[in-house]
Amino acid sequence: MTYCVAIRVSQGLVFVADSRTNAGPDQLGNVSKMHSFEVPGERAMCILSAGNLATTQAVIRQLRRDLEKKSGTSLNRCSELAEAAEYIGRISRTEQGKHGGKGKDAFNPEANFILGGQIGQRAPQIYQVYPEGNYISASERNPYLQIGELKYGKPILDRIIRDEVSLEVAGRCALVSMDSTMRSNATVGPPIELLTYVTGSLRLEKPLVLGEDHPYLRQLRLAWQEGLVKAFEGLPALPFSRPVPHLVESVRIDSARAEK
Amino acid sequence: MTYCVAIRVSQGLVFVADSRTNAGPDQLGNVSKMHSFEVPGERAMCILSAGNLATTQAVIRQLRRDLEKKSGTSLNRCSELAEAAEYIGRISRTEQGKHGGKGKDAFNPEANFILGGQIGQRAPQIYQVYPEGNYISASERNPYLQIGELKYGKPILDRIIRDEVSLEVAGRCALVSMDSTMRSNATVGPPIELLTYVTGSLRLEKPLVLGEDHPYLRQLRLAWQEGLVKAFEGLPALPFSRPVPHLVESVRIDSARAEK
Repeated sequence: MTYCVAIRVSQGLVFVADSRTNAGPDQLGNVSKMHSFEVPGERAMCILSAGNLATTQAVIRQLRRDLEKKSGTSLNRCSELAEAAEYIGRISRTEQGKHGGKGKDAFNPEANFILGGQIGQRAPQIYQVYPEGNYISASERNPYLQIGELKYGKPILDRIIRDEVSLEVAGRCALVSMDSTMRSNATVGPPIELLTYVTGSLRLEKPLVLGEDHPYLRQLRLAWQEGLVKAFEGLPALPFSRPVPHLVESVRIDSARAEK
Repeated sequence: MTYCVAIRVSQGLVFVADSRTNAGPDQLGNVSKMHSFEVPGERAMCILSAGNLATTQAVIRQLRRDLEKKSGTSLNRCSELAEAAEYIGRISRTEQGKHGGKGKDAFNPEANFILGGQIGQRAPQIYQVYPEGNYISASERNPYLQIGELKYGKPILDRIIRDEVSLEVAGRCALVSMDSTMRSNATVGPPIELLTYVTGSLRLEKPLVLGEDHPYLRQLRLAWQEGLVKAFEGLPALPFSRPVPHLVESVRIDSARAEK
């Protein structure tokens, strides 16, 4: 499986992806699910991919092939991001249709993509492209998009991400979201790739690649675990006393025992 | 949908369930998914249910019907919890098989159950009963079981729950897990029911019912949100400086602007 998240805040965009692939539990691998496309000063785009690896690789390959052609649609000839999302959806459908069928076997060629970036003077945006080829954009009220194993890491995004948080906060939150996911789901794993895009810059930096033992990731993980436990310890105790009076005593006795 | 969680610690057991049901987004309702069965001083059992509401209601109805009979299997005649889990699985399969078929329509009679409690001098235990009728128990290394929308609320359980935490901590953690789930998923909703069982007591209290506006739930939610934000603010900032040097400046400029 995979977990990828993209966040749009007013300062810019954040993209985070894990690198684990698995075709069955005994066939694990590492691949990058983050793909950069740019014409510095003119356009900058990042694509995150999840789903069938053969499909996602075929789609990225086709996108690069089209870039080398002199004419026809390509990421460099789209005049807005929505057009690029539509184009990715079209290629994805074509690739999915090439292999297997809707037979009885478990073969599933579906793939999901997130496309984000900026073209010229247009505002930066992020799109999610579904296996069917249709797509949605983020909005101020819903400023992030996720693909893959998205549920474990959703609560922290819901609590922290707003349009006005800084790019640094958005990036940090995306890593916390990724860490919670990796902790609870073995099919999502490092290295983690992180790319931040500053609104108006029209150029992409190299993604930050955080391996399992990256000092920052270790530090973040430890600090988050400690902070969570502290937050948890600060919560009001359960109001046992009224509805289940005898419990208070039992629990107190047990706690007293435990403290010996 | 539903979210239910049961936790087994050495002090006892915790059961938490939401109350929202939905047969489509325009058919919302509230039902209790927590069912108590006891012979005080002899046995105490709690069943949590998720899945097709007709199936879960039919299963609970059959369990109660069997209790009234003079002979044959019933929850009161099982000599251990595993036997009760097996019996619930059998009834569940029977009920699921009564209606519809594996046709093209979306009808799905499947149901999942958690059974927990204590019979006589045996140790308390919790079991998850799958739609197929088979079942698993919790263990010291895996001291909780979940059914329904389980992913959102899993990370906090993984971080806090150990065999040695108090019943109060286990109950509080289950409520936090439920709160995160309700926040991120509209099909899980209040009132929340919470039942704690003290090891060896062989009697069940009335569950604590926490409506949306219950003062404790509001307090917990607020304290947790504040604690999380504080924990997040205490995390080390992203190491932007090295790999993407120009970002530091850009972000600083943007932050300075935002502060005006």
